[in-house]
Amino acid sequence: MNPLPLAQALLRAESVTPARGPVFDVAEAALAAQGFHVDRFTAGEAPDGPVENLLAVRGDGGPHFAFAGHLDVVPPGEGWRGDPWSGEVRGGLLYGRGAVDMKGAVAAFIAAADRAPRIGTLSLILTGDEEGPAVHGTRALITRMAERGLKPAQCLVGEPTSARRLGDTVKIGRRGSVNIWIDVPGRQGHVAYPHLADNPIPKLVAALREIDAIELDRGNRWFQPSNIEFTDLHVGNPATNVIPAAATARLSIRFNDEQRGDDLIDRIRAIVARHAPQASVRGIVSGEAFLTEPGPLSTLVSASIERRTGLQPELSTTGGTSDARFLSKLCPVVEFGLLNATMHQVDEAVAVDDLEALTDIYADVIARALTR
Amino acid sequence: MNPLPLAQALLRAESVTPARGPVFDVAEAALAAQGFHVDRFTAGEAPDGPVENLLAVRGDGGPHFAFAGHLDVVPPGEGWRGDPWSGEVRGGLLYGRGAVDMKGAVAAFIAAADRAPRIGTLSLILTGDEEGPAVHGTRALITRMAERGLKPAQCLVGEPTSARRLGDTVKIGRRGSVNIWIDVPGRQGHVAYPHLADNPIPKLVAALREIDAIELDRGNRWFQPSNIEFTDLHVGNPATNVIPAAATARLSIRFNDEQRGDDLIDRIRAIVARHAPQASVRGIVSGEAFLTEPGPLSTLVSASIERRTGLQPELSTTGGTSDARFLSKLCPVVEFGLLNATMHQVDEAVAVDDLEALTDIYADVIARALTR
Ligand SMILES: [Zn+2]
Ligand SMILES: [Zn+2]
Repeated sequence: MNPLPLAQALLRAESVTPARGPVFDVAEAALAAQGFHVDRFTAGEAPDGPVENLLAVRGDGGPHFAFAGHLDVVPPGEGWRGDPWSGEVRGGLLYGRGAVDMKGAVAAFIAAADRAPRIGTLSLILTGDEEGPAVHGTRALITRMAERGLKPAQCLVGEPTSARRLGDTVKIGRRGSVNIWIDVPGRQGHVAYPHLADNPIPKLVAALREIDAIELDRGNRWFQPSNIEFTDLHVGNPATNVIPAAATARLSIRFNDEQRGDDLIDRIRAIVARHAPQASVRGIVSGEAFLTEPGPLSTLVSASIERRTGLQPELSTTGGTSDARFLSKLCPVVEFGLLNATMHQVDEAVAVDDLEALTDIYADVIARALTR
Repeated sequence: MNPLPLAQALLRAESVTPARGPVFDVAEAALAAQGFHVDRFTAGEAPDGPVENLLAVRGDGGPHFAFAGHLDVVPPGEGWRGDPWSGEVRGGLLYGRGAVDMKGAVAAFIAAADRAPRIGTLSLILTGDEEGPAVHGTRALITRMAERGLKPAQCLVGEPTSARRLGDTVKIGRRGSVNIWIDVPGRQGHVAYPHLADNPIPKLVAALREIDAIELDRGNRWFQPSNIEFTDLHVGNPATNVIPAAATARLSIRFNDEQRGDDLIDRIRAIVARHAPQASVRGIVSGEAFLTEPGPLSTLVSASIERRTGLQPELSTTGGTSDARFLSKLCPVVEFGLLNATMHQVDEAVAVDDLEALTDIYADVIARALTR
């Protein structure tokens, strides 16, 4: 099976997050034709409506290998040379929103499954909500698998991990992420009578200064140091002669496997409390850090990459978060996919040659995993 | 002459800053009837149009005493029990926007002038822009006086200085005021890749923390310590995963006669430059501090107050700025007027008894000043 027509059909099904309907129909048809049992279901009742998910399984018993991905995409934005939903090929490149992130990889995996031996168990875990809140997507799929007694031994996530050449990078972990909001209340007043007011800004500044001086850790063999970034400040006081009633800040922490999100929130809260006892500190952990220590899975995937490309991929933990953080609770998981240079950009595109090469690599990964 | 009908006529002429036309017609008619030479002129060409000013002079030679004030008022705002332009008397109180700040005092002074001996030179310096930018108001009047060779020996500003009882406070100085804007540029980027970005917030926070630790001075016999207040912070970044491109802060410094506005701007600029060399620091000095050291003028005004009220007024330098800062370059200046409890508030009102008492006090001040 050739991945190109399938990738084009997926690209032509508009699926800005949360994805539903047609794009899943395309995937289901291709999978059913290969003998996959396809289980589509919805989860959640967000303001946007339910999230659609797809769990496809072929075979029973033996080694169980899973591929995970998403069919939703980020909005195309303005400024494309062509139609972002055209799936057209120009100069050896297949264009479209999701070409590399990650409908191209999904098409490659489905084509690879077609080339793979019918032994062991092969699963596809496809969500329609990875680019959005990611609350009722992969997490619901993991619950569904548990309910059905499905437990893969290894999982490959098809996110676009390659940086300069297809195959140069495999991700074996990701940092965790937490956003924290600090609200410092004060009492409004006139700058000429500061004793009648309570300015919240100096307290916030003192807390932020102390937070800025924190060294969370120095990183380790597999991770760079955890890092705190201030992302917003807000007072919103138009009057030059008024001491404001409140001041807020927001920060984002990307952290390695030496930290836990809730511990970080507690730590920030304690610092803020020393400078502004009345302040409120709220945190949302969007994902804990995860690491699949280099071992059989990364060795297997690296071997398949080297066989096709000649490259020995770097095992990396850099970059943003992905749904691999959820899957890592299930089994060892690594991520490998297309070049990420155009992901989330205008004129997102994948080389048709890369799509074919990725299909070969995935087919080799499946063959090795199912014949262990 | 009774000050009440004149005060009512002034209150009924709407004059939200900048004041023009009718309210000046009322003042001019009352002054011309007493033999004042009235010089009305406009200055400036602001977006709001020109500012109207009035300079009235009676007599020639001998001691020259001046009264300064304004006919513009701040907007009435919502929630008045009656019409803010009604000038109505209820329960011994005269209501209206400007009753205490300061049409009541202007009426009292004009009535006092009617009771005063026709000796020496008596001037009224009335602007229509004290509550606004104050750029083309009292400053233009001072220029006009210089052009006409008019140089008062003493000046009384009729701002509402009384706090609890009429006569308890005379202002002999005011603090200066400067607003400073700090803009720290950075380079936008993703929080997962901080080495590709340049976060402006930590630099701003470090600068603000150092500024917060400054002790400008400890005040002196006549002034409280100079004080720095942060009045705004702004980044305006809605994206939790984005390092912002810029961060700004605004601060307000009220300072005593040991500081100069431009020196304060330079000092803040030097601190910011150490933490954020690319930052821009802009300052606007809305007034330098001024002090009329206690002497003949404050003694004279205090004597008139004590004679009528039995109170020995406190000589104070607290509170906001006033146009006295401009007049202080011309001659010794003090400020004395009505109770300030309702100034700039809804239901601004003056006791009719206070209006009459203030007229007596002003008349005594004029008599003492012109017969020195
Ligand atoms: Zn993705
Ligand atoms: Zn005033």
